[in-house]
Amino acid sequence: MDYQKILEEIEKDIAPELKRGKVADYIPALAEVDPNQFAMTITLENGQQFSVGKSQEQFSIQSISKVLAFSLAIDIYSKSLYKRVGVEPSGNPFNSLVQLEYESGVPRNPFINAGAIVVVDALMSHFGGDYSALEKVMNFTREISGNSEIKFDTLVATSEMEHASRNLSLAYLMKSFKNFDNDVTEVVRTYFKQCAIYMNTKDLSRAMMYLAFKGKDPISGKQFLTEAQAKRINALMLTCGHYDASGEFAFHVGLPAKSGVGGGIVAVVPNIMSVAVWSPRLNKYGNSHVGTLALELFTTKTGLSIF
Amino acid sequence: MDYQKILEEIEKDIAPELKRGKVADYIPALAEVDPNQFAMTITLENGQQFSVGKSQEQFSIQSISKVLAFSLAIDIYSKSLYKRVGVEPSGNPFNSLVQLEYESGVPRNPFINAGAIVVVDALMSHFGGDYSALEKVMNFTREISGNSEIKFDTLVATSEMEHASRNLSLAYLMKSFKNFDNDVTEVVRTYFKQCAIYMNTKDLSRAMMYLAFKGKDPISGKQFLTEAQAKRINALMLTCGHYDASGEFAFHVGLPAKSGVGGGIVAVVPNIMSVAVWSPRLNKYGNSHVGTLALELFTTKTGLSIF
Amino acid sequence: MDYQKILEEIEKDIAPELKRGKVADYIPALAEVDPNQFAMTITLENGQQFSVGKSQEQFSIQSISKVLAFSLAIDIYSKSLYKRVGVEPSGNPFNSLVQLEYESGVPRNPFINAGAIVVVDALMSHFGGDYSALEKVMNFTREISGNSEIKFDTLVATSEMEHASRNLSLAYLMKSFKNFDNDVTEVVRTYFKQCAIYMNTKDLSRAMMYLAFKGKDPISGKQFLTEAQAKRINALMLTCGHYDASGEFAFHVGLPAKSGVGGGIVAVVPNIMSVAVWSPRLNKYGNSHVGTLALELFTTKTGLSIF
Amino acid sequence: MDYQKILEEIEKDIAPELKRGKVADYIPALAEVDPNQFAMTITLENGQQFSVGKSQEQFSIQSISKVLAFSLAIDIYSKSLYKRVGVEPSGNPFNSLVQLEYESGVPRNPFINAGAIVVVDALMSHFGGDYSALEKVMNFTREISGNSEIKFDTLVATSEMEHASRNLSLAYLMKSFKNFDNDVTEVVRTYFKQCAIYMNTKDLSRAMMYLAFKGKDPISGKQFLTEAQAKRINALMLTCGHYDASGEFAFHVGLPAKSGVGGGIVAVVPNIMSVAVWSPRLNKYGNSHVGTLALELFTTKTGLSIF
Repeated sequence: MDYQKILEEIEKDIAPELKRGKVADYIPALAEVDPNQFAMTITLENGQQFSVGKSQEQFSIQSISKVLAFSLAIDIYSKSLYKRVGVEPSGNPFNSLVQLEYESGVPRNPFINAGAIVVVDALMSHFGGDYSALEKVMNFTREISGNSEIKFDTLVATSEMEHASRNLSLAYLMKSFKNFDNDVTEVVRTYFKQCAIYMNTKDLSRAMMYLAFKGKDPISGKQFLTEAQAKRINALMLTCGHYDASGEFAFHVGLPAKSGVGGGIVAVVPNIMSVAVWSPRLNKYGNSHVGTLALELFTTKTGLSIF
Repeated sequence: MDYQKILEEIEKDIAPELKRGKVADYIPALAEVDPNQFAMTITLENGQQFSVGKSQEQFSIQSISKVLAFSLAIDIYSKSLYKRVGVEPSGNPFNSLVQLEYESGVPRNPFINAGAIVVVDALMSHFGGDYSALEKVMNFTREISGNSEIKFDTLVATSEMEHASRNLSLAYLMKSFKNFDNDVTEVVRTYFKQCAIYMNTKDLSRAMMYLAFKGKDPISGKQFLTEAQAKRINALMLTCGHYDASGEFAFHVGLPAKSGVGGGIVAVVPNIMSVAVWSPRLNKYGNSHVGTLALELFTTKTGLSIF
Repeated sequence: MDYQKILEEIEKDIAPELKRGKVADYIPALAEVDPNQFAMTITLENGQQFSVGKSQEQFSIQSISKVLAFSLAIDIYSKSLYKRVGVEPSGNPFNSLVQLEYESGVPRNPFINAGAIVVVDALMSHFGGDYSALEKVMNFTREISGNSEIKFDTLVATSEMEHASRNLSLAYLMKSFKNFDNDVTEVVRTYFKQCAIYMNTKDLSRAMMYLAFKGKDPISGKQFLTEAQAKRINALMLTCGHYDASGEFAFHVGLPAKSGVGGGIVAVVPNIMSVAVWSPRLNKYGNSHVGTLALELFTTKTGLSIF
Repeated sequence: MDYQKILEEIEKDIAPELKRGKVADYIPALAEVDPNQFAMTITLENGQQFSVGKSQEQFSIQSISKVLAFSLAIDIYSKSLYKRVGVEPSGNPFNSLVQLEYESGVPRNPFINAGAIVVVDALMSHFGGDYSALEKVMNFTREISGNSEIKFDTLVATSEMEHASRNLSLAYLMKSFKNFDNDVTEVVRTYFKQCAIYMNTKDLSRAMMYLAFKGKDPISGKQFLTEAQAKRINALMLTCGHYDASGEFAFHVGLPAKSGVGGGIVAVVPNIMSVAVWSPRLNKYGNSHVGTLALELFTTKTGLSIF
């Protein structure tokens, strides 16, 4: 398939949609990004990449980082992790406290905020302090992306911490149910740093190759997860990767993928490729409007889908 | 792959588990079935079938019939159907009214009871009366299974109607939100008849080939749905096919599948095969205990999975 | 105190408010009532009455009838009734299913719809069929009001039955929890007939004297309830008498009272009097806008309040 | 009436019940109190007091302090306070987050934890820092009780702060809805100090005389609140004073009253008296088991009730 041509068609097709949707304005540092940008990159098994748009432009990966932290945690904790976080879709807006209360402080899955925060708490318990858990996530991200320059944006993390009330509320609720080990403020602060990792679509597409290829990055040859672990994370991305539009995304796109409010989405086509897309304006569910469209066009044009 | 050998291994592996779990005893006619039975059948593209266990024994397909009715409805109503029923996982036990009330009488997806009942209502509005909508579902089932003898069990349907209060409550709630056209009792009665369709694993495995092969039954060559429609139903089965254990099933098995309280589960491996399994005892989520195990063993042994 | 003068002052004070609020338009027969009417009547221990406005005009008492039915039921069932209906404020809009589901089909109190319907079900179980339970309520109403002409409006009852979906949903939900004995449709039909009782403010004020005077009507001298029973119904009216504005009403008016969507409110001043008021336009909580104001003015002007 | 004799009868009647129920063990400092104690004191208009049991023994007033703080706040803020906290019964267990989320961070009433915390926040905004708001509450308490020695127990406050996760969660949730002005931890710390005020039944009964007598303490002659304000607080105590057993308490006792998990309950008989009772063991709703019984016996024996 001529992937470059397909990407260029998509770039043309989505152009009229670039001004629809709104950027996440609750994070001032994100609100300043030029909202009408677009980038898309494919990485194949042999390392070959195809890109269109601003594929060198870095953006805040935000919730996509939840996949990275969970990949580390699943490897450390194995089954014991599931006592602290479930694997079911949540069926509610992405940061609702209702379900968390009814389910005794055990978040439904690691991709809603409460679940991601409890994963950070678990990593901090294992790796020691704030810094070392974060460093582990950073190093893992650098390794899977093959880019030792990956950083997080302190300004974004700090400005998120200023609007952290709901996440602090979630964390204290879990603590009240004894599902929390470390200092709440420290864990949430670390969580925001992790969310503030920035990458471009080339980095991001490259980074997810281990999930596209059964836990083993086919380019570096490194085995990061077992086949079963990789398969499970893909299942989670499919059922829970897009907040309360996960069903919609599975229905229309049909690929395991994870989105972030920075406008990024990364998807995997098992055994074939990883695709990253970025465009800052969001639809009403908090997922990139153009990013979602671009991936739907991609699966339509290529016939690639897991179903 | 030697599918027959794999099935025989599975049959041996699950034997010690055959007495775990409980049959659905709220339907007297189902409670009388010998609970320790097991059957499993694979159907390949060329029509070849492999079976173990009581693959000639018929059982009540129950909620699996929701896939059949939705397949008909999606073809008739296309996008307008989604105003009446969503495509998101529900995140709650399978017949909860809470979410239905918060979401103004629009059920989350067509595989929870409320959603399936509204699908029957839509079919009745389109096809005229009770009888003809049901006949359409029956005929569709006969056609996709290649078995013109498929029937529903009047006794099971009648005994379900005697315990229909919760479903009637759901239906009247939707009616109060104007999301209902026909007489509530008639629709629910038709719904129970549809649920009372009985088949064996050979029939059921054969019947789902249209979903495994992009809407076209490879054996008869008939195109029942478009490729996009088939892909979407598979996405729905993956995200919503197992009540409040859908995430768990995707996580452990990794195939689009639908279960029923009669103990049946049918799964598809896109472009490769359809698998039906049956064992009456249920786990705490209402899915066949041994059936779930058998499918997990199957994907582990064959490496077949969509992820 | 010169009650007549106080009532006349109130009539003048509320005049500018008579066109605010909306009548209950979901019941066509009620929507036809001239919405700008007002009436208010006080009945004292010696039987003396003071009235202003259209105190001869009859109106549909609607939810006020719940007090009548519960008075009968509490006498018959005593403590066993509380297994089927609670005595706590509901804290939710007046016909929500959420709480009913979380509390296993036992309605919070007899003044929300679900609770009132279960009370009718209990009366039907005790008195035999539909007709005789309804006749008992009618006869009780005639006796306490001293007016043997009290009737219900068949047209109102019939038109309510046409919009009964939510109440049928509530009733079937209770039935699914085994908290229902009789045919759902028959019970709901009887409930609507009871709600369609019509009276004027003179009748209504007179009728509640048994609650103002410890269970004994001081005019006829008949003891309808024990002192403890009367006190408990007053407590229920105070905590649950005005849907989700019960706290607001207690806070501003400070009297046990019950409202209905027909625009009537009846209040008792223990050991002193009963007050009925009527004006069809409702506030956003479903209580008479002017009726609520008139009672607030009344307690302010007279200093009468239980607090 | 011979109040002393009535109190002595009650003391005898409740004796067999003194070992039922459990003390609040989540606060270690409270768990150490001898659980089988009982005290009851009545204060009349002329200052005369009648007591039985350990009426000199001091206990932690806990949630009863919410009435004191609200009395101060209602006087300062008047109607503007109701934008931040409602006056409706909550219909849910006493510290549920569900309703708070559905109602956009505005707690239902000032006697549930979230409401009481927002009241402390409002007092801190008005009076400046932590210390001065707390001092105002302390001074008010000293003034109404006529006991300048009233203090709070630092040990109890500190040990509550160690189990503050749920309250911190509530406070951060309100903050996320912009219904919070001050530092969350500081407000919650102040709230716990206020809850840790300790008094005996003599002090407590004396302290509530301003609510029994229309805002004016009949003994000191000081007017603390307007008549309307006092009436409203009594209405709130009746509808919301006993967590999720408020309806039950109104139903069985029929007096405005407020309980605390320290085992205290204080009730007012408008225009007649104030009654305080204390016994540490709690019923399943978190109210003093024997205290509730004693008040029920009291209203039965004296015929005093507002209904």
